[in-house]
Amino acid sequence: MVESYGPDLARRVLSGERRALAQAITLVESGRTDHREMALSLLEQLAPPRREAMRIGLSGAPGVGKSTFVEALGIMLAEEGLRVAVLAVDPSSARSGGSILGDKTRMERLSRHPKAFIRPSPSQTRLGGVARRTYEATALCEAAGFDTVLVETVGVGQSETLVAEMSDLFVLLIAPAAGDELQGIKRGIMEIADLILVNKADGNLKRSAMGTCAEYAQALRHLRPRQQDPEGFPKAMTVSALNGEGLPEVWSQIRALDEWRRRHGHRRRCRAAQARRWFESEIHRGLVERITADRAVRQRMADLGDLVAEGKLFPANAAEELLRRIPAK
Amino acid sequence: MVESYGPDLARRVLSGERRALAQAITLVESGRTDHREMALSLLEQLAPPRREAMRIGLSGAPGVGKSTFVEALGIMLAEEGLRVAVLAVDPSSARSGGSILGDKTRMERLSRHPKAFIRPSPSQTRLGGVARRTYEATALCEAAGFDTVLVETVGVGQSETLVAEMSDLFVLLIAPAAGDELQGIKRGIMEIADLILVNKADGNLKRSAMGTCAEYAQALRHLRPRQQDPEGFPKAMTVSALNGEGLPEVWSQIRALDEWRRRHGHRRRCRAAQARRWFESEIHRGLVERITADRAVRQRMADLGDLVAEGKLFPANAAEELLRRIPAK
Repeated sequence: MVESYGPDLARRVLSGERRALAQAITLVESGRTDHREMALSLLEQLAPPRREAMRIGLSGAPGVGKSTFVEALGIMLAEEGLRVAVLAVDPSSARSGGSILGDKTRMERLSRHPKAFIRPSPSQTRLGGVARRTYEATALCEAAGFDTVLVETVGVGQSETLVAEMSDLFVLLIAPAAGDELQGIKRGIMEIADLILVNKADGNLKRSAMGTCAEYAQALRHLRPRQQDPEGFPKAMTVSALNGEGLPEVWSQIRALDEWRRRHGHRRRCRAAQARRWFESEIHRGLVERITADRAVRQRMADLGDLVAEGKLFPANAAEELLRRIPAK
Repeated sequence: MVESYGPDLARRVLSGERRALAQAITLVESGRTDHREMALSLLEQLAPPRREAMRIGLSGAPGVGKSTFVEALGIMLAEEGLRVAVLAVDPSSARSGGSILGDKTRMERLSRHPKAFIRPSPSQTRLGGVARRTYEATALCEAAGFDTVLVETVGVGQSETLVAEMSDLFVLLIAPAAGDELQGIKRGIMEIADLILVNKADGNLKRSAMGTCAEYAQALRHLRPRQQDPEGFPKAMTVSALNGEGLPEVWSQIRALDEWRRRHGHRRRCRAAQARRWFESEIHRGLVERITADRAVRQRMADLGDLVAEGKLFPANAAEELLRRIPAK
């Protein structure tokens, strides 16, 4: 597939061709140096975006019904005529070799919908690298004219924070808690969530979903209001991805929040800050890559890192020693 | 003062001489290149620490009684025979030129105590820089044999996160809420706090302090337990810095938590991870400093950052362009 990258790939992506978008994402995900050059050239041709998609980050532990929710929401939006792209950041892919969306049977209906595009997580070795590529894939979906880009993650380690760094708003999906045994939200998440959705609010679980929702609504009151939020956000709601109950309300809240933030300039400011941070981290990564291209430097950096971790060397001294070994240009 | 740095400064710091410690901190805070070299040499001589201090991060909004609390806790510990150092990270110092502990009349009793050492925040231009120096000052206090190092911040912007990156445990001080108007905790803080202390639990405010405490205790239940916490942590407690009520209980909880974490290896692992992150950020900083020593590169980096923020250039392309301008060695 990689062979077919041509000068018209940018044009084909811009025209919304799904196959071209898939190829473009494969290109940015590739680890080969020549591919990276082509990827950079492609990204350059696609900036600035002619039109912005709404970028929604979504996280939830395994078993909360994340793919059922994404499929239900995706189909609802696609039926409304919106073009929906789904990307995944899978923190476990490095170990398992699998991917969140790798299972072909998942989101079968959505994946066949002409308005939808589903992309499994790349199998990369480092989460930071995966996220960087997904950030780029998000931009490609935007260039391809998608209205909504859903970036999902199971939320291990830093993956939510990284997904939040490429999203306009962040949705956390949780399951109803059993009895009064409270399910703890992972630290740091309540801070980035705009919406907490208690899924499975159907059948036997409906009642406990409502109870769980009320408890989270209460917990959210303890957070200081954010400047970029209208009254009432962040918000906890119940939803049933299974029977669709609550789904239109969820979408209406998402739209209202996004609309408000755009009107007040928060979305623009948020994206500008995100872009600056990606720029900085690209510079850091690029500079470190340069020095560690030298095998001896790479080894020394690893050794110094160990000495620092053991407390035998102070971080500033270790960094100084490493930098001293690298001649300034 | 700077003139007196001699080869025996390390020895004098190690012997616990307070004046030497003050000079050593001035040295690491200095922006001069020759001072930086001396500071690095000093830090090198002081690693690894012969004995670890307990490093406590402390944050609270203006008006919650932070300095009254630090003074009361500090004096209690000093009276028990412990040596206490107090450092400040002041995110506002860059603008105001002032500092958290700059006011000489604050903590007057503690500052006169022979077992105590108080150091105002350095007036630096960038928060990251201030924090780096405070991290180094923490190590200097440790080398000087202090038993406890309290690092305090008013908690604007990223300052709490930075303080947490140099602390073994983190205490958040809040004021009682008026009536049922809930005071929101700044986002991200509940996640790093080990203890939430509702101060001013005295006189008229005692009742509302207890109410506020109960509400936060409830909110903390919503957080997933952390691996590095024993049963019951994070914890909310009331305290009166004014009359000392609750202070021994607070200290006993802090000690219990630290003891538990040390016994289970969490403190060692936490410090190792912190040190690695400081090492990485020192490398990043050093590499960026090198390239931006060239004025044209510095200007280009600023311009590219603006283009990226405006969405006109994609971060990866901007970074690539910047790095292309810098010849590899």
